[in-house]
Amino acid sequence: MSRPRILVINPNSNTTVTKGLEDALKPLNFADGPEIACTTLAEGPYGIESQADVDSVAMPLRRLIESDNSASAFVIACYSDPGLHVCREGTDRPVFGIAECGVLTAMTRAETFGVIAIAQRSIRRHIRYLRQMGLMDRLAGERPLNMSVAETASGEGTLAKMIEVGRALKEEDGAGAIVMGCAGMARLRRGLEDALQIPVIDPTQAATAMALGTVQLSRN
Amino acid sequence: MSRPRILVINPNSNTTVTKGLEDALKPLNFADGPEIACTTLAEGPYGIESQADVDSVAMPLRRLIESDNSASAFVIACYSDPGLHVCREGTDRPVFGIAECGVLTAMTRAETFGVIAIAQRSIRRHIRYLRQMGLMDRLAGERPLNMSVAETASGEGTLAKMIEVGRALKEEDGAGAIVMGCAGMARLRRGLEDALQIPVIDPTQAATAMALGTVQLSRN
Amino acid sequence: MSRPRILVINPNSNTTVTKGLEDALKPLNFADGPEIACTTLAEGPYGIESQADVDSVAMPLRRLIESDNSASAFVIACYSDPGLHVCREGTDRPVFGIAECGVLTAMTRAETFGVIAIAQRSIRRHIRYLRQMGLMDRLAGERPLNMSVAETASGEGTLAKMIEVGRALKEEDGAGAIVMGCAGMARLRRGLEDALQIPVIDPTQAATAMALGTVQLSRN
Amino acid sequence: MSRPRILVINPNSNTTVTKGLEDALKPLNFADGPEIACTTLAEGPYGIESQADVDSVAMPLRRLIESDNSASAFVIACYSDPGLHVCREGTDRPVFGIAECGVLTAMTRAETFGVIAIAQRSIRRHIRYLRQMGLMDRLAGERPLNMSVAETASGEGTLAKMIEVGRALKEEDGAGAIVMGCAGMARLRRGLEDALQIPVIDPTQAATAMALGTVQLSRN
Amino acid sequence: MSRPRILVINPNSNTTVTKGLEDALKPLNFADGPEIACTTLAEGPYGIESQADVDSVAMPLRRLIESDNSASAFVIACYSDPGLHVCREGTDRPVFGIAECGVLTAMTRAETFGVIAIAQRSIRRHIRYLRQMGLMDRLAGERPLNMSVAETASGEGTLAKMIEVGRALKEEDGAGAIVMGCAGMARLRRGLEDALQIPVIDPTQAATAMALGTVQLSRN
Amino acid sequence: MSRPRILVINPNSNTTVTKGLEDALKPLNFADGPEIACTTLAEGPYGIESQADVDSVAMPLRRLIESDNSASAFVIACYSDPGLHVCREGTDRPVFGIAECGVLTAMTRAETFGVIAIAQRSIRRHIRYLRQMGLMDRLAGERPLNMSVAETASGEGTLAKMIEVGRALKEEDGAGAIVMGCAGMARLRRGLEDALQIPVIDPTQAATAMALGTVQLSRN
Repeated sequence: MSRPRILVINPNSNTTVTKGLEDALKPLNFADGPEIACTTLAEGPYGIESQADVDSVAMPLRRLIESDNSASAFVIACYSDPGLHVCREGTDRPVFGIAECGVLTAMTRAETFGVIAIAQRSIRRHIRYLRQMGLMDRLAGERPLNMSVAETASGEGTLAKMIEVGRALKEEDGAGAIVMGCAGMARLRRGLEDALQIPVIDPTQAATAMALGTVQLSRN
Repeated sequence: MSRPRILVINPNSNTTVTKGLEDALKPLNFADGPEIACTTLAEGPYGIESQADVDSVAMPLRRLIESDNSASAFVIACYSDPGLHVCREGTDRPVFGIAECGVLTAMTRAETFGVIAIAQRSIRRHIRYLRQMGLMDRLAGERPLNMSVAETASGEGTLAKMIEVGRALKEEDGAGAIVMGCAGMARLRRGLEDALQIPVIDPTQAATAMALGTVQLSRN
Repeated sequence: MSRPRILVINPNSNTTVTKGLEDALKPLNFADGPEIACTTLAEGPYGIESQADVDSVAMPLRRLIESDNSASAFVIACYSDPGLHVCREGTDRPVFGIAECGVLTAMTRAETFGVIAIAQRSIRRHIRYLRQMGLMDRLAGERPLNMSVAETASGEGTLAKMIEVGRALKEEDGAGAIVMGCAGMARLRRGLEDALQIPVIDPTQAATAMALGTVQLSRN
Repeated sequence: MSRPRILVINPNSNTTVTKGLEDALKPLNFADGPEIACTTLAEGPYGIESQADVDSVAMPLRRLIESDNSASAFVIACYSDPGLHVCREGTDRPVFGIAECGVLTAMTRAETFGVIAIAQRSIRRHIRYLRQMGLMDRLAGERPLNMSVAETASGEGTLAKMIEVGRALKEEDGAGAIVMGCAGMARLRRGLEDALQIPVIDPTQAATAMALGTVQLSRN
Repeated sequence: MSRPRILVINPNSNTTVTKGLEDALKPLNFADGPEIACTTLAEGPYGIESQADVDSVAMPLRRLIESDNSASAFVIACYSDPGLHVCREGTDRPVFGIAECGVLTAMTRAETFGVIAIAQRSIRRHIRYLRQMGLMDRLAGERPLNMSVAETASGEGTLAKMIEVGRALKEEDGAGAIVMGCAGMARLRRGLEDALQIPVIDPTQAATAMALGTVQLSRN
Repeated sequence: MSRPRILVINPNSNTTVTKGLEDALKPLNFADGPEIACTTLAEGPYGIESQADVDSVAMPLRRLIESDNSASAFVIACYSDPGLHVCREGTDRPVFGIAECGVLTAMTRAETFGVIAIAQRSIRRHIRYLRQMGLMDRLAGERPLNMSVAETASGEGTLAKMIEVGRALKEEDGAGAIVMGCAGMARLRRGLEDALQIPVIDPTQAATAMALGTVQLSRN
C-alpha cells in the first residue's frame, strides 16, 4: 500500500522558498508516515507581499488543488493563508493554512502569542484575519521586521533583527510564544527560540504537523 | 541515538482506558519518530467526572511529570485538561491538554465546532474552560450523551447515541466539525464521521499529533 | 464643473441585475450631486453564489477600478463584498462594500439586525465576515430563503418567502432591523418593511448613500 | 410635492455652533433631495461637556422631536448622542446620532479608527458608549485635545493641535481613520485629512448623509 | 458618633414600592452598622417602564443626591439604573445601581445568569446595558413576565408566573442563577429560589449589601 | 437563635495573615449580623505564590468546607481563588472567591479597574482567570509590585511602592479603581486610596461584604 501524500504548496514562484520548505519539513517525512511533498505555484508572484498578491493566487491555488488527485491533504504555505476558504470549498480533503495553524499551535504553548511580520503593511491584514478567526483575545502584539524580503533571505542580520523584535514582543507586549509570520524562516526558528527562551513556532512546520496527524489518523 | 518519547498520561486509574489510548495512538508511533508511550496515573480516580475528580489529579500529575526524566513532551489525556497549568509550571518540556488541542484542531477544519460531552454536568466546566481559552466565538454548541461511563464503554448503543447528538450539533446548532469530549472514544471516531459527513476530532489523537510535531521539530 | 461620479459595480455578468441596481439607485442620483453610474463586470460569473465565485472576481474588480479614471468612489454591489480589500489597496479613492454598509446602516436603526440570505451555504461565509468586521455582538440571526436565484428573480413568491423569513428573524431571533443579504432585491424593500414593521435595509442603497455622502463632502 | 425635511438638532444653545452645522451640511442640501434644516435646542446648555449636560437635554430633545410634525428624520448633533434612545422611542421616524454614525462611517474607510476628543473627561463616556454599541474591537484609541471649547473655536491653533493628536492616533495607536469627536469642527476636516493622509470623518456630516439616504430611499 | 446612612432611592413616585424596599432591606439595617434609609423621588413617574421614564428621572436623581448632605452612599432602586452615571459625576460618595449590582452578585453564584423582566419592551434596554457593562458573556437569557405592573403587584399569580419564566431560563437557557429584573419583587425571592433550586438575586438587596460593605469599610 | 457564621479561610498556613484578615473584617462583624470567623488552612503552604501552591490547596479547601457543619457561607481568602469551583461543587452553601468579588466590586465604582499584583509571575494566571470570568473588557491593566512577600509584609516601603504602581495604573493605563491583588494588604487600603484619589478595593473585605449580604438576606 502506497504512502498517502501531503502536498505543501508554496504560493509564490520563488523555488528557493520551496526548497527551504522541503528542508524545514524533512523531520516530518517519516518512512512509515505520509509523504510530505512540496510544490511551487507556477502562476504565483515572486513573493507575496500585498493584498493583490494574496488575492491573485486564490483561484490558481483552487485549480491546483482540484487538479491534484494524489494528495490526501494540502498545506498552503504563505502566512496570509491565501485562498484558504475557496480551496476548502473545492475539495473534501483537508486544507491547512499556515497562519491559522501557526497561531493555534502557539496557543498550546502560552497564554498569549506575538507575531513577527516581515513588513508593517502586512500587519493590518494579519490582524483582520485574527479577528476573522476569533482569536484576538490571545494576541499580545504583532511587530514588523521592516526588512525587504531580499534582506531577510540573506542571513545573519535577519536573525539578529528577529531577536530584537521578538524580545520586544516578549518583554514589552508580554508574548509567551512567538509565531514567525512568514513561510520562509524555519531555519531561524531554533536560534530565535534559544535567544528568547520562549517557544517559537514556524507556521509551515506547525501546519504540516497538523496535516500529518489528520492524514495519518484518518487512515486508521 | 534513541527516539524521544511522548508520554500520554491517562489521569484516571482505569487501565482499559489507557489500553484504548494506546490503540488509538498507534498510527502516530512512527518507527523513525518519537515513541508514543501511554501510562496510567495510579493515584487517579476510576473515572474523571466531577470537578473534585479534576482537581484531585492536578498535583499527582505534576509530580508524575516532575519525576519523569525520559519524556520530551507530555499529553494529559482527559477532556477537562486537569492540572494543565500546574504541569506547565513544573517543566520546560511542552505539556498538551487534549481539550485544548481537540478544539484548536477542530478550528482548522470548520468555522464552528460542536462538542459531545458524556454528561450534562460537565458542560458548564467545559464552557468555562472555552471562555478561559478565549475560544467561545467559534463554539456552535455542546450537548451531552447523558449515558453513564459504563454505558458509553459498552459499544454500539454509544455510537448510535453519538450520531444522534452529533446530528443535533450539526443540524440544529450549525456545527461544522465535532469534538468528542472524552478521552476514551477514539474507536468511534470514524463511524461518527462517516455518519455525520463532517470532520470528527478525537482529542487525544489531536493532542498527540501536535505533541509529535513539536517534539520532532525541536530536534532539528 | 462636471459632476463627480460614483461607480457601482455589479460583479456578476447578469445585466438584468445591473439594470435593477440602476432603478434602485435612481433616488440618489441628484441633479446637483454626484452621478450614480452602474456597470457590469464583464468577467464576472452569471451569479455569485460560491466562494469560488467570490474569489474569482476579486482581481477583475481590482483591474476595473485601477483602469477607471473618472469615478470618485466605487461601490461593489454583491453581498459578499468580493475583492473589497484588494480594491482598497489599489486606489486612494473610497471603495464601499454593500454587506459592510448594509450592516452598519442597520445598526443605526436598531439594537440588533437580522440578515436574509438567498442560500444556506452563504451563511457561514457571511458570519465569518461579520466576525472579521467585529460586528457579531449585534447580530440577531441570519436565515436563508432557500430559493434558487432564478426563483428569487421571478417575483411575488419571493416577497412572501422574504416576509416569512423576516418574521422569523424578528419574532424568534429578536431582530430589530433586517438587512437584505443580496444585491438584487431592492424592489422588495418597501413591501418587506411594510409587512414586518421594522426597518429593512437594501445594502446597495445603503452603500451608495454612504458613498454619496463621502464624495459630496470631500468636494467641500 | 414638497421636499421632505431632515432636522439636525444642535442640543446646545450656542447658535454659532448651529450656524457652523448649516455651513458644514450645505453640500448635502440637494435641490431635488430632502431639505437639511438645522435648529438649536433652546433649553440646551451653552456647551455639552459633562454627563449632566448630556442627560439634561435628553427629555427636551424628546419633546422637540415629538412636537415636530414636519421632519422625516432627525440628527442629534452632539458627539455624546444625548437622548438617542429616548428620542427613538418617541417617534417612528428615524433618529441618527452623530457619534454612532461617525464611528460606523469610519469603519467603512479603515480597519481601525481613532477619536479626537475635546477633553480628557469625555473619553470614559465615549468608551462606555463604544462598548454599548459593541464596537470596541475596531477602536485604535481616543486622545484628547485638552483645549477649552473657547480655544477650539478660535481657529488655527486648533487645527495644529488636532494634527498633533491625530498623528499620535495614526502613528502610535495605529488608527486608519479619524473621527472628530465633536459637532463643531467640520471646517477643519479637510485640513486635518490633508495633513494626516488618512480619512477624517466629521460625524455630523456622516450622520446627515446616512439620514439623507434613509429619507430619500424611503420615498421610493 | 452617629451611624452613617445609605440612602436607597425609589425613582418612581409609588410609595408602596418604597415601603416594599424598606421591608426588603430591614435585614441589612444592623444596629451597629449604617442606617438604611429609603426615600421616594417625588418627581418620578408612578412606575418606570419606558425609556422616557428612565431618562426623565436622571436629572431629578442627580439633584436629590447633590442636595443630600447626610448620606454616605446612594442606591438607585430601579432595574434600569436611571441616572447612574450622572449621579456618580455629581458626588464623590459611591452610587450603586441595582441592575449592575444584581448582575454582578449573580455572577458570584453561577457561571451564567438569567433575568426575569416585567415587560418584553424592557429587554432590549437591559441587553444594551449589559453590553455597555461588558457582561454579555455570562448572560444565559432574559425573558419577560408579560404582566402589567398592577398584576405583578397583586400576589400569588406573580410568583407562579415567575416560577414558570425562571424555569425556562434555567432549563432551556441554562441559567445557573436568576436576577429579578425589577425593584419591587423582593418578597417573592425566597419562594422563587425554593421552586427553582438555584440562587435568586433581588437586585435592591444585592446593591444595598454592596453599599453596606463599602460604607462600613471606608470608616475603618 | 444563634448568629449564622461566615467562615473566611486563609488558604496559606501563615497565621499572621489570618490575624490580619480578622482585623480587616472586624467592621463587618455586626452584633446582630452573621459572625465573621477566620481560619487558617493547616495544610496550606506558607504563602501562595505559584500555580502549584494554588492547585495544592484546592482539595484541602474542599475537605475543610465539606467537614464544616456550622458555616452558612465561605470566603476563600487568596487572590487566585484556589479551589473555588471544586468547593462550590461540594456544598450548597455559597462560596465566595476574593479575586472574583474584588473585581466585581471594583466594577461598581469605575468604568475600568487596575490590579496590583505582588509578583510578575502571577499576572498571567490572573489574566487567564479574568478571561475565564468574561471580564477582560473592563480591565485597564495589571502591574506587579515586584517585592517579596516578606518585603510587602514589612510596612511603609510597601505603601510607597503600591502608590507608585497604583499611580501608573491610574495615569498610564487609565484605571478608575484599583483592586489590591493579594489577601494580606487591607491595612494599606485607606492610605492607597487617599494617595490615588480613586476607589481602592481590598478583595477580602469585598468578598466578605458580599457574603454578609447573601447570608443575612437568605435568613429573611
